[in-house]
Amino acid sequence: MKKILVINPNSNEAVTEGLRECLAPLQLPDRVEIECLTLAEGPFGIESKLDTESVVLPLHRIVTSREDADAFVIACYSDPALALCREATTKPVFGIQESGLFSALQRGARVGVVALSPLSIARHLPYIRALGLESRLAAERPLNLSVEQSEQAAAYPRIETIASTLVEQDMADTILMGCAGMARHCEQLENTLGIPVTEPTRAAVTQALGAVLLQH
Amino acid sequence: MKKILVINPNSNEAVTEGLRECLAPLQLPDRVEIECLTLAEGPFGIESKLDTESVVLPLHRIVTSREDADAFVIACYSDPALALCREATTKPVFGIQESGLFSALQRGARVGVVALSPLSIARHLPYIRALGLESRLAAERPLNLSVEQSEQAAAYPRIETIASTLVEQDMADTILMGCAGMARHCEQLENTLGIPVTEPTRAAVTQALGAVLLQH
Amino acid sequence: MKKILVINPNSNEAVTEGLRECLAPLQLPDRVEIECLTLAEGPFGIESKLDTESVVLPLHRIVTSREDADAFVIACYSDPALALCREATTKPVFGIQESGLFSALQRGARVGVVALSPLSIARHLPYIRALGLESRLAAERPLNLSVEQSEQAAAYPRIETIASTLVEQDMADTILMGCAGMARHCEQLENTLGIPVTEPTRAAVTQALGAVLLQH
Amino acid sequence: MKKILVINPNSNEAVTEGLRECLAPLQLPDRVEIECLTLAEGPFGIESKLDTESVVLPLHRIVTSREDADAFVIACYSDPALALCREATTKPVFGIQESGLFSALQRGARVGVVALSPLSIARHLPYIRALGLESRLAAERPLNLSVEQSEQAAAYPRIETIASTLVEQDMADTILMGCAGMARHCEQLENTLGIPVTEPTRAAVTQALGAVLLQH
Amino acid sequence: MKKILVINPNSNEAVTEGLRECLAPLQLPDRVEIECLTLAEGPFGIESKLDTESVVLPLHRIVTSREDADAFVIACYSDPALALCREATTKPVFGIQESGLFSALQRGARVGVVALSPLSIARHLPYIRALGLESRLAAERPLNLSVEQSEQAAAYPRIETIASTLVEQDMADTILMGCAGMARHCEQLENTLGIPVTEPTRAAVTQALGAVLLQH
Amino acid sequence: MKKILVINPNSNEAVTEGLRECLAPLQLPDRVEIECLTLAEGPFGIESKLDTESVVLPLHRIVTSREDADAFVIACYSDPALALCREATTKPVFGIQESGLFSALQRGARVGVVALSPLSIARHLPYIRALGLESRLAAERPLNLSVEQSEQAAAYPRIETIASTLVEQDMADTILMGCAGMARHCEQLENTLGIPVTEPTRAAVTQALGAVLLQH
Repeated sequence: MKKILVINPNSNEAVTEGLRECLAPLQLPDRVEIECLTLAEGPFGIESKLDTESVVLPLHRIVTSREDADAFVIACYSDPALALCREATTKPVFGIQESGLFSALQRGARVGVVALSPLSIARHLPYIRALGLESRLAAERPLNLSVEQSEQAAAYPRIETIASTLVEQDMADTILMGCAGMARHCEQLENTLGIPVTEPTRAAVTQALGAVLLQH
Repeated sequence: MKKILVINPNSNEAVTEGLRECLAPLQLPDRVEIECLTLAEGPFGIESKLDTESVVLPLHRIVTSREDADAFVIACYSDPALALCREATTKPVFGIQESGLFSALQRGARVGVVALSPLSIARHLPYIRALGLESRLAAERPLNLSVEQSEQAAAYPRIETIASTLVEQDMADTILMGCAGMARHCEQLENTLGIPVTEPTRAAVTQALGAVLLQH
Repeated sequence: MKKILVINPNSNEAVTEGLRECLAPLQLPDRVEIECLTLAEGPFGIESKLDTESVVLPLHRIVTSREDADAFVIACYSDPALALCREATTKPVFGIQESGLFSALQRGARVGVVALSPLSIARHLPYIRALGLESRLAAERPLNLSVEQSEQAAAYPRIETIASTLVEQDMADTILMGCAGMARHCEQLENTLGIPVTEPTRAAVTQALGAVLLQH
Repeated sequence: MKKILVINPNSNEAVTEGLRECLAPLQLPDRVEIECLTLAEGPFGIESKLDTESVVLPLHRIVTSREDADAFVIACYSDPALALCREATTKPVFGIQESGLFSALQRGARVGVVALSPLSIARHLPYIRALGLESRLAAERPLNLSVEQSEQAAAYPRIETIASTLVEQDMADTILMGCAGMARHCEQLENTLGIPVTEPTRAAVTQALGAVLLQH
Repeated sequence: MKKILVINPNSNEAVTEGLRECLAPLQLPDRVEIECLTLAEGPFGIESKLDTESVVLPLHRIVTSREDADAFVIACYSDPALALCREATTKPVFGIQESGLFSALQRGARVGVVALSPLSIARHLPYIRALGLESRLAAERPLNLSVEQSEQAAAYPRIETIASTLVEQDMADTILMGCAGMARHCEQLENTLGIPVTEPTRAAVTQALGAVLLQH
Repeated sequence: MKKILVINPNSNEAVTEGLRECLAPLQLPDRVEIECLTLAEGPFGIESKLDTESVVLPLHRIVTSREDADAFVIACYSDPALALCREATTKPVFGIQESGLFSALQRGARVGVVALSPLSIARHLPYIRALGLESRLAAERPLNLSVEQSEQAAAYPRIETIASTLVEQDMADTILMGCAGMARHCEQLENTLGIPVTEPTRAAVTQALGAVLLQH
């Protein structure tokens, strides 16, 4: 029996509960357990770069101390501590932006990202360039919503509008949700747009599943 | 119960049998069946660009006719027919070079590819550029072996030499096998080098697993 | 006396006749014959990726069997079979998208492409990236016309509108026709816009002319 | 009177003293004071990614609390906390890798970086890609020395060898020291090689000088 | 006492006088003299590529003959003769476009350039690509004003409009003036936009200051 | 009857005579005359950047005054005055480096350039980057010969050695001569290597031929 530890770096247990629901279809009883953990010392929400930096060392501590885990997923779209954790352990560690982009790009040629805000887009762009994926990005467009707002059912019309613009104006043919909290909207959006919609935490956990199933 | 259809585009049933062994750890009884299929009309081995092109329409026919399959993996490192099949079906279709590169790059920063020959490298480079991943490639280096030779135990020392050169001279920190037939060497190579080694068919099937587990 | 074989990969003889007219100024009696050939087994029009793939092996057969030809031009803007044919013969083989882009970029700094449809643009972009020319592309914009419609005189106003947008909004200073069938509109468009307009089949045949004139 | 605060993020006061000497020619009495500060809570030396991350929040605290400073220089070649500090203050903040690369590239076309170790090079490459400067990098080559060793006179022959290789094999025409501690070797190296050698802390303080002299 | 020679390559002495005012805060009495020189044989204004080329050899003559100068700044945004002068002397030579871009990019992630005209933008883009900075450019947008008009107070509203568009539509977070003559507008623009605004001649002279203060 | 004016920008009439021989197969009596002109005011050989710049304005004068010419080719591998001349006339103007690269890349995937010296390579690289072709360059390697030496029969063995290294070490599959004077070696080199070898002046004149044959 293998274990994937999915760490929600904010301290909002409701978000972690949302992750559990979102990841339920990927649970493999008897083979792999997916445990979702709230980072107690994290901020209530990760919105600024300071929030992101504040969880780096706590994430490192978990990754280096949780010996029962066989793989890790850091469930924040800024991929905090990802390179650091990879240096610190030989176990596989996945970040949801990286996994999300790579998965989305296996369903289409140009990815459009539904982001929360202009500020988050500004943080993502240099990272996408460091990943080497700049030429595959159709565009990121902001919802101008908070994390909390983006999770609610009321956010759907705005999400659909932004995603449609990514398709029609920016020529995206595959959509990525640019935050861990929009899972509930994926199915409806995919049905409406008729193109693949990738939920990034599921993308990262998929990578982790493969990794642990193949571990010796 | 979902089904992933892995298509070996050459007509060598021994290769398909090798795929079955290689993919056994990813079988999920009661949830997902991984079926490995030999392309009867394929050439005995795919070595030239002509071989690659000759399987494009047969692959398209399978992908558009096998209604029992929920996802497809094209198990040839040249990713023949990948874009075509994606246009032809809304079911997910994965290619092993694309999946292999994306998976390897989630285990390190610069990927080194163990290729069969200079000719195969020449075919891969424009594709890697089209994928946008050129800046993440440490190097591809050729074994100068045939597909058949690369699968045999006797090939291991040569594989280790080439992979070590990728690490030491080209600064690769993650290795990708550049052919569907080298699965048996992965574990030993990973243990020797101490860095992650990705087998590309497993990488593609991992993506397919996630996709079918999440299908409505 | 040398011969350039220009292959129209669709089975529409009217299109081949249009090529003959378009290429007449490049005929060099006593030095080089330009023969235009209709691919009998091709589809009536090449519009989808499946159409494109369906002509790959037939094109290869012609290129490897027509011993009287000294150079080949594949007159379909998707450049089907181009890399394959180059591997199959030491005679020069030219594709009209590749030649068209390279010629247009010798008349200006940023090329704007008048394409038929959003789908054709989606096919061109990864190819342009593989060619390494992404940074020189001002933009591609679609006419939303079929091949047939684009050849007719009635298409001109729409073509002029799209080309003007490429110049004014996308800062193109050189225009490329993104299909083999728009030759009749070039002169008028060039006169109206005051910047160079490249017809891609002529660009490829120009390359072929130089190649055969220089053959030993 | 303006003040530039140069922060040495490790707790080794000897290094800070070295910075003071290295920066003495840039002091402008009556106009600008350059104050060099040791980060008391920093590790004794910054060698790993964990060391780098451990100084991020302390650096942020200094930048947001030292109201007497008009500009900041973070004197560690990994540019820790640079983006974070820029989000946190409207005062100019400079990192020595970024400033060093930009200054070196105003003295030549292709920069060669004398790095400490292969691990540090691995950390720099994605950052250089995020900066957009990958195509201007001739190469980075490692000394395989510790920070301390690299500062000593005995290190010079090794530094000269590596820098010469960057010039002769990698076609660098401008050299950048890839660590804050090699200032003492610059003059001799420049005289020997006959091409410009950039010391990165001086490059960052130069930028800061211009910024504060121009502040209203 | 060191000397920086700032060469205005046009023959308009009023422009040179403007440079003197703009650079006054960077004068360091007793340490560094900044001398601003009008190129007598230059055209009255540099607007076309022919104007630019016409000053190349005169600039080269000054740089190779003015032995009293310790560093040079070529104060025309097209950076005429920059590579040539660097080959001709071991003294540092700076161009204002290059210095301006590098300085602006140390104050933000994506630079927006306020250019004079579409023609000047067309000249800048290949140069920015040669510098390797294409991915850091948010956009250049034209004022559609002459050099002379852009210097006058009446130009400010137009400059503010263009700069605001660069921020809001193109996501620039740092602004660069794309001409040597807009210095007077910088402070007001910076106060209005709330993001850094770089004046390129000041950026180049800052680089020169650091270089001469550090000369042996 | 059309006329292509090929301008040798150095004053060495022997070089111009060499061009006449090299271009003889492209003469089309009764259709197109190729006239080769020596630039009387040019330096005897163009070796430095100063030589290159010294011919810019003279080239511009010829291009704007020779009304009998229908197209121009500037026969110096540095492409001096190319952008300037394109701004100055609506007639087509071709440079041999640009045409040579584009032609070579229509005969293979990765071009290897046989250059004269490291200094000439240093001049070419930023230009290749501005052209957007950096990713298609296998490598440039220097002969370390003067222009004169490279033209002589005795240079052949050295040229073959360098070209072979470009193929074997740098994976070039198409070779470009990096100077107008090596035409005599092309045929032998092509026969020996078995891959296409492009002579750049012929490549540019080929483009010019197509352009004038198609002029109204």
